Amino acid sequence: MRRMAAPLLDALVTPAALVDLDRVEANLRRVAAYTREHGLRWRPHTKTHKTAELTALQLAAGAVGATVATPREAEVMATVADDVLLAYPPVGAGRLARLMALPTATRLTVALDSREALDGLGRAARDAGRSVGVLVELDMGMRRVGAQSPEEAVALARAAATTGGVTYRGVIFYPGHLRSPVPEQGASLVEQTARLRAFVDALAAEGLRPDVVSGGSTPTLWRSHEVGGLTEIRPGINVLNDRNTAALGACDWSECAFSVLATVVSTAVPGQVVIDAGSKALAKEEGLAMAGGYGALLDRPDVLVRGLSEEHGLVDVSATTWRPRVGERVRVVPNHVCAAVNLHERLHVLRGEAVTATWAVAARGW
Amino acid sequence: MRRMAAPLLDALVTPAALVDLDRVEANLRRVAAYTREHGLRWRPHTKTHKTAELTALQLAAGAVGATVATPREAEVMATVADDVLLAYPPVGAGRLARLMALPTATRLTVALDSREALDGLGRAARDAGRSVGVLVELDMGMRRVGAQSPEEAVALARAAATTGGVTYRGVIFYPGHLRSPVPEQGASLVEQTARLRAFVDALAAEGLRPDVVSGGSTPTLWRSHEVGGLTEIRPGINVLNDRNTAALGACDWSECAFSVLATVVSTAVPGQVVIDAGSKALAKEEGLAMAGGYGALLDRPDVLVRGLSEEHGLVDVSATTWRPRVGERVRVVPNHVCAAVNLHERLHVLRGEAVTATWAVAARGW
Repeated sequence: MRRMAAPLLDALVTPAALVDLDRVEANLRRVAAYTREHGLRWRPHTKTHKTAELTALQLAAGAVGATVATPREAEVMATVADDVLLAYPPVGAGRLARLMALPTATRLTVALDSREALDGLGRAARDAGRSVGVLVELDMGMRRVGAQSPEEAVALARAAATTGGVTYRGVIFYPGHLRSPVPEQGASLVEQTARLRAFVDALAAEGLRPDVVSGGSTPTLWRSHEVGGLTEIRPGINVLNDRNTAALGACDWSECAFSVLATVVSTAVPGQVVIDAGSKALAKEEGLAMAGGYGALLDRPDVLVRGLSEEHGLVDVSATTWRPRVGERVRVVPNHVCAAVNLHERLHVLRGEAVTATWAVAARGW
Repeated sequence: MRRMAAPLLDALVTPAALVDLDRVEANLRRVAAYTREHGLRWRPHTKTHKTAELTALQLAAGAVGATVATPREAEVMATVADDVLLAYPPVGAGRLARLMALPTATRLTVALDSREALDGLGRAARDAGRSVGVLVELDMGMRRVGAQSPEEAVALARAAATTGGVTYRGVIFYPGHLRSPVPEQGASLVEQTARLRAFVDALAAEGLRPDVVSGGSTPTLWRSHEVGGLTEIRPGINVLNDRNTAALGACDWSECAFSVLATVVSTAVPGQVVIDAGSKALAKEEGLAMAGGYGALLDRPDVLVRGLSEEHGLVDVSATTWRPRVGERVRVVPNHVCAAVNLHERLHVLRGEAVTATWAVAARGW
């Protein structure tokens, strides 16, 4: 086979999603060291990147398995991970059939918060002749899903422990509100530890002590060890990072490993340039940064994408002397990397300015 | 070949994008009658649906050609349309090469607002031995792209008229601000007509009278005839419609032909149910309706999707007695149909409750 020269960045048609592999590897080393130091199992949420290749790198760096949210993510990640956690209630015959069709060698665990979901999963697992682990979802203040009280958690855990086809393994929650911009909607770290202990103690008193206590997210990542009782964390974003994560102080700008390459297509309106990365390339997600906007230039973080229509990104150059010409290229760090990646068919993987690989965003859709 | 029975709605794995064909056909008849009545050419923007199949229906209903924004859309729509308008500046060698590779039988016209874009297009067209039409983009108050003054428009039109490989055909603008929620950023209908006349008169005075004056969008669709001098309109959304269009009064709720089928996956939090259509199925686009939210139930428009995370839609049921159970299905009309369609691989086409076809959203990406 002839060895092909790596294409250069300049050859890509824009908009194009870029991943800086040096930064990815540094991000992987950082979380691996942190979880090792604190005795936490690291089970990254793969919804951020939706690629088998990046999951494989995470596993090689020390991750114990993959977290997924959809059947498609489970199918794709099961090609490289033998331990998969579906952190989402498996409801509906179609979704259950897809889960049961995963390779029998895949150790599958599922999060749920209702008897309906548990009963459906148990039936499907028995019919398929497989055993599926169950984590009872707890609401730790996010008010999205999860048992509202220790009593509810105990009732569901007891049902899981006595349902054929499934094995009760522990509890799971999402703590992303901890450092959210509206912290009053959530709970403080101390309150969260106390709330978690109330759940765990109630379960233990009924002989249902959880082996797994799964929490963690990128905004709260580096304080996970302060939450007593955690056994594993599931950060997603931190492998790539984004503008919101930097604004929250959970990463440095130099740790942002994802960007969208775009071309300046118009400079007609004074004080503004238009790039060919709009809401269909960057995702129209609000910024947490005080400065607003939908993204910032990787090499000029003070220059913001102020407006988005579907194929137009409006870059505000009114406060800079930089005046790019039509045809010039820029790299944009979006506010929310998970939403942006999901808009692209492939990620172009860079070492410096050379494209060394192309990864299919294979787990898009459901 | 064995005729297969049409699958039923119930058999789809959720979330699933649905198109109600009866409503589509009614929407097509309505715009066809309007444009016929007012002597306007109808060139629908196909970025809304990104399918060749729906473009074919639009052409059969009387559309004169397809409007597109990206090379991929041009490639897909050229399989069914022989007249394609790229309403986007073609900047960059990669994009130009893709355009020049379109079938030679495709009549191609391109919008642009800079000498750089014009010169690049002319070179590419000459190299490819084809002739490409040019429309000069005008800024009619949107402040996104387009010539800022009649003088700028004249200079660019003159350059187009004298550049080899291209043919100057007229002018184009986007009037979507007309009925936007922040009308002070735009111009009134009377101001717009006056502004357009100033551009057209200046061009005519220099022997550059535009054959094509292309405007129109869904919010302004039904008042297009009030803008003097228009020759064609390019509405995109109106074939499917959405919650924002209904909120603007540009369609009736019963004309919304697109919805996302979703399953209730959790009812743990009081006053709320969680569905499996989140921001990756509905798009997190702000609503124009006073009521806020990211979508509303097709059959219960007063029940709103109040919050979205990636795979969770938080449906507010606090003000209704309706209490769906886990496993129940609902249909959601999103705020912005173009952004929602772009998140799906395929559209399931319905006659009543039967799925009669599946259309690939083939023009996603670039």
